[in-house]
Amino acid sequence: MGSTSDWPTMRQAVELLSQFDIPVEKHVISAHRMPVQLQQFAAQARAKGIDVIIAGAGGAAHLPGMLAASTTVPVIGVPIKTRTLSGIDSLLSIVQMPSGVPVATMAIGDAGAKNAALMAAAMLAITDPQVAARLAAFRQQQTAAAQESEAQLDE
Amino acid sequence: MGSTSDWPTMRQAVELLSQFDIPVEKHVISAHRMPVQLQQFAAQARAKGIDVIIAGAGGAAHLPGMLAASTTVPVIGVPIKTRTLSGIDSLLSIVQMPSGVPVATMAIGDAGAKNAALMAAAMLAITDPQVAARLAAFRQQQTAAAQESEAQLDE
Amino acid sequence: MGSTSDWPTMRQAVELLSQFDIPVEKHVISAHRMPVQLQQFAAQARAKGIDVIIAGAGGAAHLPGMLAASTTVPVIGVPIKTRTLSGIDSLLSIVQMPSGVPVATMAIGDAGAKNAALMAAAMLAITDPQVAARLAAFRQQQTAAAQESEAQLDE
Amino acid sequence: MGSTSDWPTMRQAVELLSQFDIPVEKHVISAHRMPVQLQQFAAQARAKGIDVIIAGAGGAAHLPGMLAASTTVPVIGVPIKTRTLSGIDSLLSIVQMPSGVPVATMAIGDAGAKNAALMAAAMLAITDPQVAARLAAFRQQQTAAAQESEAQLDE
Amino acid sequence: MGSTSDWPTMRQAVELLSQFDIPVEKHVISAHRMPVQLQQFAAQARAKGIDVIIAGAGGAAHLPGMLAASTTVPVIGVPIKTRTLSGIDSLLSIVQMPSGVPVATMAIGDAGAKNAALMAAAMLAITDPQVAARLAAFRQQQTAAAQESEAQLDE
Amino acid sequence: MGSTSDWPTMRQAVELLSQFDIPVEKHVISAHRMPVQLQQFAAQARAKGIDVIIAGAGGAAHLPGMLAASTTVPVIGVPIKTRTLSGIDSLLSIVQMPSGVPVATMAIGDAGAKNAALMAAAMLAITDPQVAARLAAFRQQQTAAAQESEAQLDE
Amino acid sequence: MGSTSDWPTMRQAVELLSQFDIPVEKHVISAHRMPVQLQQFAAQARAKGIDVIIAGAGGAAHLPGMLAASTTVPVIGVPIKTRTLSGIDSLLSIVQMPSGVPVATMAIGDAGAKNAALMAAAMLAITDPQVAARLAAFRQQQTAAAQESEAQLDE
Amino acid sequence: MGSTSDWPTMRQAVELLSQFDIPVEKHVISAHRMPVQLQQFAAQARAKGIDVIIAGAGGAAHLPGMLAASTTVPVIGVPIKTRTLSGIDSLLSIVQMPSGVPVATMAIGDAGAKNAALMAAAMLAITDPQVAARLAAFRQQQTAAAQESEAQLDE
Repeated sequence: MGSTSDWPTMRQAVELLSQFDIPVEKHVISAHRMPVQLQQFAAQARAKGIDVIIAGAGGAAHLPGMLAASTTVPVIGVPIKTRTLSGIDSLLSIVQMPSGVPVATMAIGDAGAKNAALMAAAMLAITDPQVAARLAAFRQQQTAAAQESEAQLDE
Repeated sequence: MGSTSDWPTMRQAVELLSQFDIPVEKHVISAHRMPVQLQQFAAQARAKGIDVIIAGAGGAAHLPGMLAASTTVPVIGVPIKTRTLSGIDSLLSIVQMPSGVPVATMAIGDAGAKNAALMAAAMLAITDPQVAARLAAFRQQQTAAAQESEAQLDE
Repeated sequence: MGSTSDWPTMRQAVELLSQFDIPVEKHVISAHRMPVQLQQFAAQARAKGIDVIIAGAGGAAHLPGMLAASTTVPVIGVPIKTRTLSGIDSLLSIVQMPSGVPVATMAIGDAGAKNAALMAAAMLAITDPQVAARLAAFRQQQTAAAQESEAQLDE
Repeated sequence: MGSTSDWPTMRQAVELLSQFDIPVEKHVISAHRMPVQLQQFAAQARAKGIDVIIAGAGGAAHLPGMLAASTTVPVIGVPIKTRTLSGIDSLLSIVQMPSGVPVATMAIGDAGAKNAALMAAAMLAITDPQVAARLAAFRQQQTAAAQESEAQLDE
Repeated sequence: MGSTSDWPTMRQAVELLSQFDIPVEKHVISAHRMPVQLQQFAAQARAKGIDVIIAGAGGAAHLPGMLAASTTVPVIGVPIKTRTLSGIDSLLSIVQMPSGVPVATMAIGDAGAKNAALMAAAMLAITDPQVAARLAAFRQQQTAAAQESEAQLDE
Repeated sequence: MGSTSDWPTMRQAVELLSQFDIPVEKHVISAHRMPVQLQQFAAQARAKGIDVIIAGAGGAAHLPGMLAASTTVPVIGVPIKTRTLSGIDSLLSIVQMPSGVPVATMAIGDAGAKNAALMAAAMLAITDPQVAARLAAFRQQQTAAAQESEAQLDE
Repeated sequence: MGSTSDWPTMRQAVELLSQFDIPVEKHVISAHRMPVQLQQFAAQARAKGIDVIIAGAGGAAHLPGMLAASTTVPVIGVPIKTRTLSGIDSLLSIVQMPSGVPVATMAIGDAGAKNAALMAAAMLAITDPQVAARLAAFRQQQTAAAQESEAQLDE
Repeated sequence: MGSTSDWPTMRQAVELLSQFDIPVEKHVISAHRMPVQLQQFAAQARAKGIDVIIAGAGGAAHLPGMLAASTTVPVIGVPIKTRTLSGIDSLLSIVQMPSGVPVATMAIGDAGAKNAALMAAAMLAITDPQVAARLAAFRQQQTAAAQESEAQLDE
């Protein structure tokens, strides 16, 4: 993430990944305050065995796109909700990448952070049957929970 | 894709995937006109050996999200540019997924279609060294081409 | 509705329909978490004697459109206000349906939920003189109440 | 419709209704240039046997809402695409109705006009089995046409 | 105004007009709940000696435009801030009037209500030297107050 | 107007005013290129016998607001459609005036220019019975033309 | 700044400039309430030895652009967050300047005010090695602080 | 600039700088395709004697912000108009920079490119009397041209 202020949102991705027993490294790398570190991190990511990068950023949210510019490891971007424009600035800055360097963009805010973890799991699940099984189980529980919630209406 | 009218955009994803020697199945499945087929396709995707789904759709673009709702195979969404709202409707309909069912959203239009192919390649490259090598080569050529373009300014 | 979190908005539709003595079934069917149930519900709606469906959803609000895709029963969509984009995402995801599958879209939030009930009543009132009479009475009371509100200004 | 300039959009609703053998009256009633006629038309609509009103309007599109204000006949609103703001003004002016007077709002432009006809048919189909059968047939043909369109991709 | 809920905003126009000794009639006329009264009021406005109409409305804010449709008395529109879209819906619904029927639109919310009173005064001041003098004095005081406010910064 | 490029829009205001026999002075005064002249013009407007000012401007459209800042003559603002943002920038720059200095804002583009002329006429008509009569006649013709346009549909 | 209500935002620029030992004059000059003073201030700025002007304004934010219109001293604009439109109106009114008169526009709100001070320092640092050194030191500290913030995540 | 496709816009900045006899280096540096070169260029800019950087970019326009992240030389950003969102994405991606790293943002498109050159000249003019004189002369000619344009209206 680009700043510790993004942590309340991004921790939701971390917690969900832990639930899937997927090992996580978490870093604060500001695209604008730590551009050298950003590039080093991205350039070494594949060699260090990182399979997927999740990057949350707000406003002129350059972190996900600049990480993607220096690695072929898939980058998932989470637009952080902003105080002035509610995150529409973050969303457009992350999603409107030019041809050649994609960022897998999620919804603005908390839902986006959780879904970033699920998308990372889905990417790993392409060839990892254990993650695939855990993801399938998670989705079944989620469906079951949604089905049961109807009963709450009558209370 | 949801309609043959999306083909001029989506063929760019197909062509790029062919360049990477990644086998592609292409389908027209309208979320609103073929909801039964949509669900069958998604529910059987993993069993049929599909590793990644790329879905392009415009307006109230439900196709990517509804595919994602019925499979754990990662779904990449491409917002098609629309005549009335230029694709901002497609973008919001695809990216603002609720917690639990992610869609990896790309830029609106052509850049998004090309990047969908590159993101799919990046997902496969996590465990496939051949795709990883081709992707790395593609990116190096892309960088070289960008570097050479400066010379065009003087002409 | 797509989630119990939509209930504070959608209950206003339910209460207004009760006022009109129109029988209501209420369900939580998440487009993304319960896609199979969604389709079953929609496909059987006409046979079960359901005359009108009211569906509230937020964000990438696919519920109304996907219900409409699997039934010819008229579907009324209520865009739920969202925390990040205030419901403009919900509105565009619901209203921008492609040619062939309409959703009768209401205003964002509470006003939309109440109006969904009134629109459902108006649809039934086409051939049901009792509902028509109750609707006419409701509208007259509403006009009278608006007229009387002027007196409050002087207090 | 509010002006003859809306006819290229609104004729698509008329043609589709004719296909369903639903009798149509078409009128030009400008909310701002013919307010007296607007109110007379709306106030007499039910008595004249009009079952559904479809109103297309652009910009500060007051026609659908003001018709709805003077009748309990269901009003379907079609936001016409505008030259300056592409119809987002028309959409918000039509859909954001206050609690008490609903307008069933369709997509901006041509898709909205066609869907207005289908929604009108769906309303009548609640109690008219002939219209219901024609609507079901139309939807089946539409699904079949969408399924066949996949073959076009290979040409 | 269209509803007593608009009063906290619109009272600011009333108070400012009182300050200018301009006589004010205040009414609650809902465009959608009281369309007949709206038209009667507008049609009789000039004959009753009303020189300027100020109309505040929110959402699909039809009141100012429909008043303007039935009178040649100048109508000033105040877009009320809305809970869902902050008044951008009110603004577009009021300002985007078609050619032929103008509404003099003010800023969204409180500033707009105050400015509606000042614009009404400016219209009357064209031929009323007393109002012109009071308006000039008001503006001079306003300038003086703005100049003095700089001193507050040092405190 | 702020530039001769605004003339195709603003000439529609001039032509309509001529139709009403209202004398017009037309000027090019750029808020940003001629700020001294702008202020002189505004400061002398009332003394020179100018009753109403119509100002068209695009983008960061400061002309109407800055004229209003230096005169108590009513200022009508016409947002010119812009190539990049279609005039939504012009609209917000003109209409969102702070409390104390109003601009009577019209619709974006041609409709706004025509309506500026009609609003100017309406302001003068408050005390000028001849202009009032011409305005009433114009509106009646307009209504008649709208009524007759229905016949065109059948051709 | 245009009003003392902008002070909580703009003081952040003042404090940061003081940290750089750059002398600051602060003024309240309302574009709309003090147009004469605005022009005098701008016209005399260069002669008075002012090197850079920072102007914060909200809504129809004319202050930065009108200052720029009367001086060749570089003007930095800070869009103040507004209650109704969150500052998107301020941003467009400041940034969309016509060709010929630029305003160096910053982000909406607090970040923009701080960055205005840093941009002013950067302008002076072109030829002032002391300011350049202080700016470089500030940026290094900022990078160091960002790097250290990662440690907070584990607490 | 980020791509040769930005040249038709950015050449307008180059031509205007030449008019001011300000030496210009022009480069194509893609933020996403040439991130290493971007950082090298920015990190060495001050040492190489570059006084001001003008960067044009479109979509998720990361170039200006990432240059600013690696240098204290002032960076001027020009949002390029985009085919899908008209440059509102470019604008937000450039202007919404976080506190600590400013970009002096100009208008979208051609006006922005020209103004970038004028802003660069204004920055240099702080201490360079020759540039200051040329800038003042340019502005006077501009004012004169604007004044003369009024005569064109009568032709």
